[in-house]
Amino acid sequence: MEYKVTVLRGDGIGPEIVGEAKKVLKKVAELEGFSLHFQEELFGGAAIDACGEPLPEKTLRACRESDAVLMGSIGGQVGVSPWYKLPVEKRPEAGLLRLRKELGLFCNLRPAKLYPELRAASPLKEEIIGEGFDIMMIRELTGGLYFGEKSLRVENGEEVARDELIYRAHEIERIAKIAFSLAKERGADLVSVDKANVLESSRLWRKIFTEEGEKEKEVVLSHALVDSMAMQLVRNPGKFSVIATENMFGDILSDEMAEITGSLGMLPSASLGEKDFGLYEPSGGSAPDIAGQNMANPLATVLSAAMLLRFSLHEKGAADRVEKAVEKVLQKGFRTKDIFPKQKEEDIVLLSCSEMGDELVKVL
Amino acid sequence: MEYKVTVLRGDGIGPEIVGEAKKVLKKVAELEGFSLHFQEELFGGAAIDACGEPLPEKTLRACRESDAVLMGSIGGQVGVSPWYKLPVEKRPEAGLLRLRKELGLFCNLRPAKLYPELRAASPLKEEIIGEGFDIMMIRELTGGLYFGEKSLRVENGEEVARDELIYRAHEIERIAKIAFSLAKERGADLVSVDKANVLESSRLWRKIFTEEGEKEKEVVLSHALVDSMAMQLVRNPGKFSVIATENMFGDILSDEMAEITGSLGMLPSASLGEKDFGLYEPSGGSAPDIAGQNMANPLATVLSAAMLLRFSLHEKGAADRVEKAVEKVLQKGFRTKDIFPKQKEEDIVLLSCSEMGDELVKVL
Ligand SMILES: CC(C)[C@H](C(=O)O)[C@@H](O)C(=O)O
Ligand SMILES: CC(C)[C@H](C(=O)O)[C@@H](O)C(=O)O
Repeated sequence: MEYKVTVLRGDGIGPEIVGEAKKVLKKVAELEGFSLHFQEELFGGAAIDACGEPLPEKTLRACRESDAVLMGSIGGQVGVSPWYKLPVEKRPEAGLLRLRKELGLFCNLRPAKLYPELRAASPLKEEIIGEGFDIMMIRELTGGLYFGEKSLRVENGEEVARDELIYRAHEIERIAKIAFSLAKERGADLVSVDKANVLESSRLWRKIFTEEGEKEKEVVLSHALVDSMAMQLVRNPGKFSVIATENMFGDILSDEMAEITGSLGMLPSASLGEKDFGLYEPSGGSAPDIAGQNMANPLATVLSAAMLLRFSLHEKGAADRVEKAVEKVLQKGFRTKDIFPKQKEEDIVLLSCSEMGDELVKVL
Repeated sequence: MEYKVTVLRGDGIGPEIVGEAKKVLKKVAELEGFSLHFQEELFGGAAIDACGEPLPEKTLRACRESDAVLMGSIGGQVGVSPWYKLPVEKRPEAGLLRLRKELGLFCNLRPAKLYPELRAASPLKEEIIGEGFDIMMIRELTGGLYFGEKSLRVENGEEVARDELIYRAHEIERIAKIAFSLAKERGADLVSVDKANVLESSRLWRKIFTEEGEKEKEVVLSHALVDSMAMQLVRNPGKFSVIATENMFGDILSDEMAEITGSLGMLPSASLGEKDFGLYEPSGGSAPDIAGQNMANPLATVLSAAMLLRFSLHEKGAADRVEKAVEKVLQKGFRTKDIFPKQKEEDIVLLSCSEMGDELVKVL
């Protein structure tokens, strides 16, 4: 088999972390006997600098013609980077939103797993963490407030701003189907999050999830309000396995959830469209403050590459191998700066971004 | 001076906790030489049971004719209580939303303070808590998604649900003014939270806060995105003092923030309108599972009563006295069940709800 992967290195630490993920992908492809064709394209701030817009047509076309997209991270520091002097719709983040919509990436998978070796990094107490947690959040990604109509008008002499939160039944149905099937795979309960006591869109969300739940009897479905979930994630994260929610709530809750692991540099993400196509990127940002210093953590990007192997290329063996390799380097005591313990520990070795990539290749 | 206070005891533990707050209010009024006239009215589930709707006209009228409203908590357990078989607009929570709108309670103050005696209850690690925290969140309460137009229609054969997020300039201006004045009072920085990289309403929010900030030079204003704030509250709560945000974001973040104290039973809230009028209620819910057992924590309601004295009646001396009394009972080692330490501690005494009220009256 030969697969085409478009690579968007992006900004800040993007090029470094993507470089290591490519190293790992090449090695595992060799080991598993398939071949990967990488095509690099401009995106985000880098694309603005080169051609004045965050998502050039050529980039979009390349993404469309590939089996999957591997992305670094985009954007810079607001107030520092000149990209944020541009109008909102020309900024790096606008490119990302347009890319999601154009590629139909409606399903965002954001896992938050606490690695046993990195328990100490969690801001939560030992007794709260308990057995640890391994949560998969499924966030709807091309609907809701993000893509509804927006307006700023003057009415009766004052400015009035509007954003529309809109959900169509089929947009909820397709995300519910994925949520139930992931819950089934994991043998886990499913918690759907909404604000049905206030929002009409949440009431439709809840109704459709409930209907889907009547068909999927093996999965125990429950509903939580978004404010209550914001509490429960901090009080008892181990209680959850699969959580599904709409776009804006997912943006907030997935970041809260990422933070309770204490190691954002370990968290991958996948944004899936119809038919296996997907875009894969680390959950963290572009960290402009440490860019170019070969000290970023490439593991989130490497784990994103594993998700790419799993969900878009169906190379399950290769995906498992990469995930195992990540566990192994942690067990061996290798750490990048962001996950290096604050209290001294025996046999823990600080590595640069590229050294971490090399170790992964070694253990593969 | 004589003040009129409407009392909405509400559901679940509401009557118990309000009862203790009234005891404390009566005592402090006697000590400080003013008089309080309490008028009890039906609200929430109790009102549904008595007259079929959560907010009877008589209740609304009584609130309007008083100087302030003291409330317990409303609602029951979804799926258990018959109130949740009613259509959404007839449920206890709908009464609360209507009450906020009718009384023009646009400014919700939600403090999250970690009491030194209760540090152990926080789910966060000692090193994250550091010096502790004492955050005031200011949440816009009568605008945004909560009160925009809602619809559920069939379009092209499928259901489509819409909620409108709308903010008018004056709605943002008046909340910004309060936020800056509270920050000034505290000698603190102000962080305004929005999602300006995605929402038009957030861009207007940010613009108006920025303009207000140019007038209020003593206060250092910064902006944070809502997803980033969801992380930062867990990573470093001690960094924040005053946070202002719109209605939906405030609902989520204030609950997350409450949870990191680990003692929801300690957190009051105030919902203010124009001209000193306000409604005061504990941040926690009606806890139907422990209702009627005289074991609820009345301190959040007592602290809400202190806010009532401070913001609506301008009885600063009385407010200080009540807050001091709460600190003193904690120092004396008195705890209700919810804040009773899990690990054995010396000189800690378990009290019932009414015993806690009695102790407060004693130390006043
Ligand atoms: C950059 C921003 C538009 C984006 C979002 O809000 O979706 C980001 O926060 C994310 O979660 O991927
Ligand atoms: C009961 C509900 C409608 C309410 C809200 O969402 O405002 C509650 O969660 C709150 O925060 O006071």
